[in-house]
Amino acid sequence: MLKLNFHPAGRHFLQIPGPSPVPDRILRAMSYPTIDHRGPEFGALGLQVLEGIKKIFKTEQPVIIYPASGTGAWEAALSNTLSPGDTVLMYETGHFATLWKKMAEALGLKPEFLGLPGIEGWRRGVQADLIEERLRADKGHVIKAVCVVHNETSTGVTSNIAAVRKAIDAAGHPALLLVDTISGLASADYQHDAWGVDVTVSGSQKGLMLPPGISFNAVSKKALEASKSAKLPRAFWDWTDIIEMNKTGYWPYTPNTNLLYGLVEALDMILGEGLDNVFARHKRLAAACREAVKAWGLEVQCADPEVYSPVLTGVMTPEGFDADAIRKTIYENYDMSLGTGLGKLKGRMFRIGHLGEANDLTLMATLAGCEMGLKLAGVPLAGSGVAAAMQYLTTHKARQQ
Amino acid sequence: MLKLNFHPAGRHFLQIPGPSPVPDRILRAMSYPTIDHRGPEFGALGLQVLEGIKKIFKTEQPVIIYPASGTGAWEAALSNTLSPGDTVLMYETGHFATLWKKMAEALGLKPEFLGLPGIEGWRRGVQADLIEERLRADKGHVIKAVCVVHNETSTGVTSNIAAVRKAIDAAGHPALLLVDTISGLASADYQHDAWGVDVTVSGSQKGLMLPPGISFNAVSKKALEASKSAKLPRAFWDWTDIIEMNKTGYWPYTPNTNLLYGLVEALDMILGEGLDNVFARHKRLAAACREAVKAWGLEVQCADPEVYSPVLTGVMTPEGFDADAIRKTIYENYDMSLGTGLGKLKGRMFRIGHLGEANDLTLMATLAGCEMGLKLAGVPLAGSGVAAAMQYLTTHKARQQ
Amino acid sequence: MLKLNFHPAGRHFLQIPGPSPVPDRILRAMSYPTIDHRGPEFGALGLQVLEGIKKIFKTEQPVIIYPASGTGAWEAALSNTLSPGDTVLMYETGHFATLWKKMAEALGLKPEFLGLPGIEGWRRGVQADLIEERLRADKGHVIKAVCVVHNETSTGVTSNIAAVRKAIDAAGHPALLLVDTISGLASADYQHDAWGVDVTVSGSQKGLMLPPGISFNAVSKKALEASKSAKLPRAFWDWTDIIEMNKTGYWPYTPNTNLLYGLVEALDMILGEGLDNVFARHKRLAAACREAVKAWGLEVQCADPEVYSPVLTGVMTPEGFDADAIRKTIYENYDMSLGTGLGKLKGRMFRIGHLGEANDLTLMATLAGCEMGLKLAGVPLAGSGVAAAMQYLTTHKARQQ
Amino acid sequence: MLKLNFHPAGRHFLQIPGPSPVPDRILRAMSYPTIDHRGPEFGALGLQVLEGIKKIFKTEQPVIIYPASGTGAWEAALSNTLSPGDTVLMYETGHFATLWKKMAEALGLKPEFLGLPGIEGWRRGVQADLIEERLRADKGHVIKAVCVVHNETSTGVTSNIAAVRKAIDAAGHPALLLVDTISGLASADYQHDAWGVDVTVSGSQKGLMLPPGISFNAVSKKALEASKSAKLPRAFWDWTDIIEMNKTGYWPYTPNTNLLYGLVEALDMILGEGLDNVFARHKRLAAACREAVKAWGLEVQCADPEVYSPVLTGVMTPEGFDADAIRKTIYENYDMSLGTGLGKLKGRMFRIGHLGEANDLTLMATLAGCEMGLKLAGVPLAGSGVAAAMQYLTTHKARQQ
Repeated sequence: MLKLNFHPAGRHFLQIPGPSPVPDRILRAMSYPTIDHRGPEFGALGLQVLEGIKKIFKTEQPVIIYPASGTGAWEAALSNTLSPGDTVLMYETGHFATLWKKMAEALGLKPEFLGLPGIEGWRRGVQADLIEERLRADKGHVIKAVCVVHNETSTGVTSNIAAVRKAIDAAGHPALLLVDTISGLASADYQHDAWGVDVTVSGSQKGLMLPPGISFNAVSKKALEASKSAKLPRAFWDWTDIIEMNKTGYWPYTPNTNLLYGLVEALDMILGEGLDNVFARHKRLAAACREAVKAWGLEVQCADPEVYSPVLTGVMTPEGFDADAIRKTIYENYDMSLGTGLGKLKGRMFRIGHLGEANDLTLMATLAGCEMGLKLAGVPLAGSGVAAAMQYLTTHKARQQ
Repeated sequence: MLKLNFHPAGRHFLQIPGPSPVPDRILRAMSYPTIDHRGPEFGALGLQVLEGIKKIFKTEQPVIIYPASGTGAWEAALSNTLSPGDTVLMYETGHFATLWKKMAEALGLKPEFLGLPGIEGWRRGVQADLIEERLRADKGHVIKAVCVVHNETSTGVTSNIAAVRKAIDAAGHPALLLVDTISGLASADYQHDAWGVDVTVSGSQKGLMLPPGISFNAVSKKALEASKSAKLPRAFWDWTDIIEMNKTGYWPYTPNTNLLYGLVEALDMILGEGLDNVFARHKRLAAACREAVKAWGLEVQCADPEVYSPVLTGVMTPEGFDADAIRKTIYENYDMSLGTGLGKLKGRMFRIGHLGEANDLTLMATLAGCEMGLKLAGVPLAGSGVAAAMQYLTTHKARQQ
Repeated sequence: MLKLNFHPAGRHFLQIPGPSPVPDRILRAMSYPTIDHRGPEFGALGLQVLEGIKKIFKTEQPVIIYPASGTGAWEAALSNTLSPGDTVLMYETGHFATLWKKMAEALGLKPEFLGLPGIEGWRRGVQADLIEERLRADKGHVIKAVCVVHNETSTGVTSNIAAVRKAIDAAGHPALLLVDTISGLASADYQHDAWGVDVTVSGSQKGLMLPPGISFNAVSKKALEASKSAKLPRAFWDWTDIIEMNKTGYWPYTPNTNLLYGLVEALDMILGEGLDNVFARHKRLAAACREAVKAWGLEVQCADPEVYSPVLTGVMTPEGFDADAIRKTIYENYDMSLGTGLGKLKGRMFRIGHLGEANDLTLMATLAGCEMGLKLAGVPLAGSGVAAAMQYLTTHKARQQ
Repeated sequence: MLKLNFHPAGRHFLQIPGPSPVPDRILRAMSYPTIDHRGPEFGALGLQVLEGIKKIFKTEQPVIIYPASGTGAWEAALSNTLSPGDTVLMYETGHFATLWKKMAEALGLKPEFLGLPGIEGWRRGVQADLIEERLRADKGHVIKAVCVVHNETSTGVTSNIAAVRKAIDAAGHPALLLVDTISGLASADYQHDAWGVDVTVSGSQKGLMLPPGISFNAVSKKALEASKSAKLPRAFWDWTDIIEMNKTGYWPYTPNTNLLYGLVEALDMILGEGLDNVFARHKRLAAACREAVKAWGLEVQCADPEVYSPVLTGVMTPEGFDADAIRKTIYENYDMSLGTGLGKLKGRMFRIGHLGEANDLTLMATLAGCEMGLKLAGVPLAGSGVAAAMQYLTTHKARQQ
């Protein structure tokens, strides 16, 4: 039997930037009995989720739902639109952008990695002007796609995707625009159609509040056109059959039925609250969190206020303090999980998730756990972050009451 | 379908002194399919819970488990041991002691209500010397039972039951000792046998972390003897048949099977953590909570530090501030439920529950919600209770790590 | 942790006449987090269930919901309407009628037990003419109440309650009519108002498909009037405060919140299917079951076709075959629980439940388990009951498709 | 909110050959809160499932667990071991073998499709001699892999994998042996190591009784060696990083945490029952099912008794009766889902699943539903299959009691 309990009592606080805490409502929905994926009930379920998910991506185009976790949807975006040896321009916003680039290499593509040098690039959003400049230089249109991460989970930066689109258009370049919003979707505003994105990649375990296990590709007409001549071998990820069968609510192979139940519930919760309310709630909690970081006298990882992430906040630890040792202290004393520093930032920062099933008091618990843990770890704090966050929250009331 | 959601998003904080938050583990256990209450599997289940629950009451005697909520177990204690017209000495510790007295009247008993005058009696524990004095005066042994509340849920006072036993013995009086520890059991130390209690009344929805619906009578040999001649009419509550059938793990009528599943899980959690660890955890959280109240410049309802409750803290609101208006502000802005002031204390205090599924961060969330709500309600605060509680928690580490 | 599994694999068939199998939907609803029973969400929940349950009893009058199992509701019906020493006329339909009579004695009432002699009375319904005759003889109106069981769970007989009402009226007798439909409600038609019942007693774990733990009293105006002068001591069961507080959706003491969640779901399922469809489904399954019993050459316990129960079928076993030994064989070989013979019928019959979450294939599984078990136990069978039931079901199509 | 209910009442019978009915225990385990996939609790969980799953595959080698459904594991097996243009020998056992072949083509491999002609090949198992013959002819060792399906879900045939191994060895051919046992694992005996399989592909939603969403590759040393030079582009499916990180219980990308919870429970159930008991149970139920088909006078799809599947039984319908119309009749009247005929067998047969959470009474319910449905559909039946199955089950007792 499942015995997972490393702590004596009480609720664990899962404050990593995803998987985010799964609401009880969704866990309950997921325990509905598995049904025949070829029967009439399934068709009704399929049509319901396929229609609903479009509203989250703000698209009229098909959204493919894969019975696989988010990394798979990255591969799907590349393999459906590109051919072996194709050059792709990828922008380095952080660790996940770097992993996506590695995947492109593994698949036989030729990624060019653009970005600001050193850690600086990991503290700011996508610099659309650099992209424009590079595309203008690519007279022969060797570059087949531009790949950017919308919300960089490793740093807490939410890039301006509309600006990237403008940059591509300004350069008059035909490259596809592929965007990863795995951790941004349903927490930060995202507009697949209006922003002119060709493939949007996302997953279930962040703003959608589901466990990991399903992932998405929203696809433009241009992307679908590109897929007809794309030569990377693909079968599981191939869009064609899925889109065809989705018309009646089915999939060509066995879908992840119970996670689709959870998706119905998630859509009901998110659309019931209203996307704008959801975004406002995330923004407000993120702002309160940053107030806390500043009051502690620590630095927010994201150095550009224009692109602060509403999903998570990266916190730089002072010289001489290993961020992972602090995380361990917090985990052991306060039963809370925080995100580790990744790649270039290993040991130098930790990440606080405040997404999905989050509200004022879960944030306050989180910040109290951080503040007490930082103290136990001996980090000198300028002041009380908890007090600052309370100040912010009481003076900036929530949109909905 | 069940649609209960008065708040936009995130977890509700149920910080009343019971029903306390039900852990997921227990909710999951309760969803096991209902089985035949006359079949062999049920017998095994019955023996398991009947044996386990004794450890919680610290008794070798039978513990009766009723498929009814706690108020019923009050009635059971009275109707199994007393006869119409019997005089019972009941001690006024607060609202629940008062309700129990009303029940005694309704059942045709003659309760004498002892206690300190006015609100004072609601801020202190049972005064054992008053009981001793009264019993000594009762030369003819007209008083058949002494009824006291161990943990008074309406005030946050945990009385000294051993002292009451001593008082009865010192008076050389044969009265039975009936104790209500509905909200104390499994949060505060309780010793049915060692303290010489005759009937202990308790319920499921507090320290045992279950939903309401089952309740208990732990019974001494003397109580069982008394039941043979007790003349209050009783059927559903009658101990005799239940104790007899319990020998093989069954009940004379249909038990509350799914709550018994939850009880198995609760016993596993509590005994797994260790009763002493559970009590230490509650004490520590209660102490931190009181630090917060003091820092705010508010008064803890319990005026005697010897009998502070580890289960809940009553907070007196300043003159001119309606405690229920404050609770409403907190509920609406921070999605947290606090206990109302009851009876004599209506509008003058609120109650913070920190029992059962509670840990440092749920307490900090709770205190932050209180502090922000008090602020929004315009209550002048001397200082930050949240800061004081964090100070306490970081300097008084938990017993178990 | 809960470890209940006496069988190697696969689903257990719980075919006793209650507790009936709890649908997944209801178990899921019951796992919604427990809320503050004094908060605004609870009030909304309370009003919803209190309104909905009236439709099931077919009454415009209040229905009291107790946080206690069904036996308690028996006590409530008696103690709210009667006084010590009152004579009540109770009709012996079987084991449960007998237990109710015992309860009346324990509570200090004087029950007169009417019925046909020997086992004969346990094979037929209430004989309204006997009641009329007895009431006519009671010129002084000593009899204060007539108590009958609507669906006798121990035999599989569903008595005609309207006829009992007529009998009382024909005798011009003022006695109250108290009816137990614990196992009949929501499976067999029941009309509290139209049939002129004064108190209807019911429970959760039968037609309502909930686990045991809540029970009901539907009360007429006459019953409410009687309660004002009834002198049996009562507190937990007292209607007055409950009805008063129910007006706003609350209870005077802690309700069984999570079972109320289940009740919302049950009401949704039952009213969604339509009460008439529910009754028709039960009738059809019961008829098919009786076809099987007849084909086996065994006797249906109920000897009067007019009052066959749609809830369960009692099956008499041939001389020389212990019904409980057969049940054990079936339990061990086919992982199915059947009801035992109770009281006078111990060892001479077993009971097949076909109520609540029941359909054609669960019935067929049940009958196959019986037929195979009877064979293994060496009972000579005239023919295949399974074949007969299939014949019935295929030629009598379900009402809804 | 999720509203899936196309039938009036009672339990749906999901008797397709997978997804199989998910036991309540597993659904409950899956509702455990999602945890940090990088935290210490996850590492313990990971090691537990990775160790346990090896026992199911009967291997000492690594088993890769993908957060993706079974079709993905097919792709993984091919892309980790082969290079573009490689010739693979695939054996046509039915529809799923055909789909795997199509996938091989899509990935740029050159599959040779071997098998008996027409429908004949879909009624028998893999003919190892044909494989041996073909390999002997392949002097230049152009063929890089032999791909066979162990349990062909479209027909109900379980091929002899050890014989295929022998054939390859007898031919002295170095080709890898890749086997799909998606629907066979944990229902039919399977021995990855002893049978010398190089890659075994499987999924969660059949014998493991989980919802769809995770899938497996068990890999031999030879397969791992081959992966080093295999040139098909791969990233998500690549074994290397996964095996490396699995050493500490983690995955390189987000695993499907909640399905892993379910897997822990499934392993506990299956290994608790004992693999040999599980296999014996499936064999016995399958035999009883075939007795029913024969008694009806219909043909079992599998024409070779040596390779009858213990997982499912394919039933040929008589000329003039559309199998899918019969399935529809059964679905609408008896709330049971059966498998459709696939590919060459569309409309000519239906498939009865009797796997996973299956026992005598669920089988009897299933067969009763089939028999009644066949009757309603007007199919002339030679006799009662239900009677024949009962006869078989009562005379062939289960291994465990």
